[in-house]
Amino acid sequence: MSNATGVASLEWEPPYYAVIFTSKLSPDHAGYAEMAERMVEAVKAQPGFLGFESARGADGVGITVSYWRDVEAIKLWKQHGEHQEAQAIGKTRWYECYALRVARVERAYGKT
Amino acid sequence: MSNATGVASLEWEPPYYAVIFTSKLSPDHAGYAEMAERMVEAVKAQPGFLGFESARGADGVGITVSYWRDVEAIKLWKQHGEHQEAQAIGKTRWYECYALRVARVERAYGKT
Repeated sequence: MSNATGVASLEWEPPYYAVIFTSKLSPDHAGYAEMAERMVEAVKAQPGFLGFESARGADGVGITVSYWRDVEAIKLWKQHGEHQEAQAIGKTRWYECYALRVARVERAYGKT
Repeated sequence: MSNATGVASLEWEPPYYAVIFTSKLSPDHAGYAEMAERMVEAVKAQPGFLGFESARGADGVGITVSYWRDVEAIKLWKQHGEHQEAQAIGKTRWYECYALRVARVERAYGKT
């Protein structure tokens, strides 16, 4: 998980995987916040999930990066029942636009 | 660059590289905004730079993801003179904590 500071841990040993999800919320995004909260709870129980970090600015642009042990774990989360529902509503209603990128973390450093 | 929506382009063909920079600003971060603006201008001129996306929430946690053609381009930017100055001040003054991860983007999709 992200530590108390909001910056995800530097203790995981690369290589691991990052899913970079960037989105711009639609003006009408009723139900989004509640679903996002439920997804945070659900993802914590997924096998291979390491943690995440998230920020959204006043302009509605948000970036959530989730970290995973491997691509299999990412696939399993993509297929998760309630997460599939969230993805469907997100595409059609909540997100004006979005991009999802799967990336292999090769190096990590910093001060957390 | 990010398109007008704030979500970075999906037109680049993987593989390419992402630098995920997550930070929490210190309460006193005088000079940060001005330097950040100068860095945005400087990075655009770097060889191999593709684009970036950025979000910072009210809690001070921000995520900036910059995208690059290859790791050589990332190394060159790390060594850039004014950027090195920014890194040094950031470490000692602006950031309460931060993490930088270099990741190879293998897949990208969405709606921008």
